Amino acid sequence: MPQNADLLVLHAHLLTMRGDGVGYLRDGALAVRGECIVDVGTSAELSARYQAAEILDATGCAVLPGLIDVHMHTIYAIVRGVAQDVSNWMQKALAPFAKHMDEDAARAGTRLNIIEAMQAGTTTMGDYVRPYPGWAECFAQAGVRACLTPTINALPAGGMAGLKLGDLYPLDEEAGRASIAAAVALCDRWHGAENGRITTMLGPQGTDMIGKSQLLEVACIAEDRGLMLHVHVAQGDREIEQMIKRYGQRTPEFLADNGLLNERLLAVHLTEASDEETDRIAESGARMALCSGSIGIIDGIVPPAHRFREKGGIVGLGSDQASGNNCNNIFNEMKLTALFNKIRYRDPEIMPAWEVLRMGTIEGARAIGLGHRIGSLETGKQADLIVVDVSVPNMLPIIDEPIRTLVPNLIYAGTGKEVRTMVVAGRVVMRDREVLTLSEDQVRAEAQHQAELIGERVARDPLHRDLALLSAMRAGQL
Amino acid sequence: MPQNADLLVLHAHLLTMRGDGVGYLRDGALAVRGECIVDVGTSAELSARYQAAEILDATGCAVLPGLIDVHMHTIYAIVRGVAQDVSNWMQKALAPFAKHMDEDAARAGTRLNIIEAMQAGTTTMGDYVRPYPGWAECFAQAGVRACLTPTINALPAGGMAGLKLGDLYPLDEEAGRASIAAAVALCDRWHGAENGRITTMLGPQGTDMIGKSQLLEVACIAEDRGLMLHVHVAQGDREIEQMIKRYGQRTPEFLADNGLLNERLLAVHLTEASDEETDRIAESGARMALCSGSIGIIDGIVPPAHRFREKGGIVGLGSDQASGNNCNNIFNEMKLTALFNKIRYRDPEIMPAWEVLRMGTIEGARAIGLGHRIGSLETGKQADLIVVDVSVPNMLPIIDEPIRTLVPNLIYAGTGKEVRTMVVAGRVVMRDREVLTLSEDQVRAEAQHQAELIGERVARDPLHRDLALLSAMRAGQL
Repeated sequence: MPQNADLLVLHAHLLTMRGDGVGYLRDGALAVRGECIVDVGTSAELSARYQAAEILDATGCAVLPGLIDVHMHTIYAIVRGVAQDVSNWMQKALAPFAKHMDEDAARAGTRLNIIEAMQAGTTTMGDYVRPYPGWAECFAQAGVRACLTPTINALPAGGMAGLKLGDLYPLDEEAGRASIAAAVALCDRWHGAENGRITTMLGPQGTDMIGKSQLLEVACIAEDRGLMLHVHVAQGDREIEQMIKRYGQRTPEFLADNGLLNERLLAVHLTEASDEETDRIAESGARMALCSGSIGIIDGIVPPAHRFREKGGIVGLGSDQASGNNCNNIFNEMKLTALFNKIRYRDPEIMPAWEVLRMGTIEGARAIGLGHRIGSLETGKQADLIVVDVSVPNMLPIIDEPIRTLVPNLIYAGTGKEVRTMVVAGRVVMRDREVLTLSEDQVRAEAQHQAELIGERVARDPLHRDLALLSAMRAGQL
Repeated sequence: MPQNADLLVLHAHLLTMRGDGVGYLRDGALAVRGECIVDVGTSAELSARYQAAEILDATGCAVLPGLIDVHMHTIYAIVRGVAQDVSNWMQKALAPFAKHMDEDAARAGTRLNIIEAMQAGTTTMGDYVRPYPGWAECFAQAGVRACLTPTINALPAGGMAGLKLGDLYPLDEEAGRASIAAAVALCDRWHGAENGRITTMLGPQGTDMIGKSQLLEVACIAEDRGLMLHVHVAQGDREIEQMIKRYGQRTPEFLADNGLLNERLLAVHLTEASDEETDRIAESGARMALCSGSIGIIDGIVPPAHRFREKGGIVGLGSDQASGNNCNNIFNEMKLTALFNKIRYRDPEIMPAWEVLRMGTIEGARAIGLGHRIGSLETGKQADLIVVDVSVPNMLPIIDEPIRTLVPNLIYAGTGKEVRTMVVAGRVVMRDREVLTLSEDQVRAEAQHQAELIGERVARDPLHRDLALLSAMRAGQL
């Protein structure tokens, strides 16, 4: 007597990501009831065992856990393309655009980024932004999983405008208090919302952007509420310089001395971390968010993720922000992570396809404290999965013997555009690339409109004359 | 009184690639008559000036010259995914598959690769393979432009099987003679065929794989016929070792001493070229084929293209072969070239988007001696162009002021899958991603079938036990 299921996925090249490898199952199947996976097996087994309201035939497709982006700044999708190929990109390219971003533009950016990421297979979005009205609602409406970090800093209104390079940031306790209050309110409203589909973290933007006592206060609040801390760590030479001037310590040592270096920390970037610091952070149990594409293009640097993992550390992948990286696509991050590390170590065996696939799925889930709920396709876990067409010309052929080509082809030939269908918490939120929860046409039109408005505001602001890319405009290179 | 045109492309973000930059024209238009571009201007101008049999409305799209892939091995598309993440990939991963490739498999690989490349915007394919029956016909039928190099070597039948690392390759003059004859026959048949859409070069596979007198003979034949030489140069430490053992010289010096280092040479890879050798090759006028993705994944190396260009050298991009690189996509090569070089030099300003776009278009055309016919959209040139949808979520927004985001978004956010329509020599060969000249379904089915046959042959051959990836198969990592 067959059991009932809401959804039965059949005939997939199934990458469950169970165990230590990729957990491949040939002609694999999944049964989903409500939000959860209730069974995993072969198509023959599950066809016999279940009667389902909906059948998803995945013939010719890989089915894998939805991809996990642990560190994004979605609002910056609205200024995609304004800050590439520039030194000091933040000051010389992004700052004038950031200054003129308002809430409407931020919301349009978040929505654009959500659709872009969905169409590239990302089911869990680890967004990291100064909270604005309607921010969390974008994710709730899209039906994706979100791990939201409202950022916290104590920088005075107007930020760091007018500071000279090397000046100590002026920290404003009042601004810090307001920032903490807004972040905590957001976490209290949204942590566990949408039946657990939305979770939160607390996010001091950097140890250099908030005073020590307020930083420790945030850590206490996080501990009380069982939230992780999500912090840029050793993200650049400016941060290290600020820390040495203020505390006489580099960031990792400062974190350790203040009891913040532990498994409740998601440490982002580690661009400037020394080998010893990398080891220390990994061994503490802190997680690393690796943004290969972004740090590659902005700084020309390959962060120390390989070493971090060798020391037993857990690494998730992040797409960071479109004004630097230019795209928010975990397929892109998986591939670049593999290639960049082969180049860094001049060794083609470093970071094989299966390792970066783990970082984009189960290891990413563990990095944000959700390894028990998502990241692999196992009975009892949330049904977050993507269906990827591997019968398109750029992915073929897929053979099984003597070498299976599925995982290398997914990682090294995949672009993200092969993702057809997405299920989050048991619900089909994208089918045949059509996002069912948001109007793609409206989101595209609004994004284009808001970007044009920002462009006009920036063009009217004399500050735009400092843009490094104006010379490329004049030279006909853009 | 309007003039007649066969095709009018209107309302494009037009990247003509004229001049020294990207030659942008807002609301740009092109008129095509027969195989050629007859006019370039604004949509207003050309709409008034021409009456066209067909109008291609490119609203929301970029239109640019078709991309040029100067170095491919299309047959290896059939073994995509068998040789990634391996040291000594050729011996430890590819060789058993290459041994079992027959003509049917080769043809299936070429056809698969042609469709993959078309769907990623490549209009000119610089294929480099041991000629097999029907090879050139694949390109003729597809309607793409091809620059075919039948490879030449003097390796005995069975190739290098059984050789120990460090053994001097046994060169067989008889095999060399047959190889030269086959290559010359192919060039004589196909050079200038299809109204010039197909051209050829002569391709000694490496200076280590053919004796000096036969190499010089090939160079004479090339000069007589006005063909370029297309040669792997300093492609690996094995080549350099062979050259030193045989001639007491490294490859670049050997080429110079034998009068082969000049503007008629397309030098591929330069993986092992020293700074001085790179300068010498660039200054000689020889062209460089840069295969960023392939050399990155196979060797973990970034070839010296930046230095080569600084010395005035001309660089084209090549996707090499799918068994290493895993994909044949010039969008991929443009992006990786920019990112890898930023990392190599730890400088975000190195290799900006517009430079790699030039390498993928006009500079690539010059690299293969076709700069007068293709590579930019100008009156009198061949109408080879692609229409790329830049209104999809991963490409938006596109603004013009104060910074134009089109080129960075194309290069850093584009995947190739945004290419909608392709025109080669004035003929629409792909429309809305549907290849009109080949049956994609047949090509996909045949590729999958032939790959399975190769897999079975390899699995039956005891040689497969040496495959490095067997351990990954056993460990559940593939």
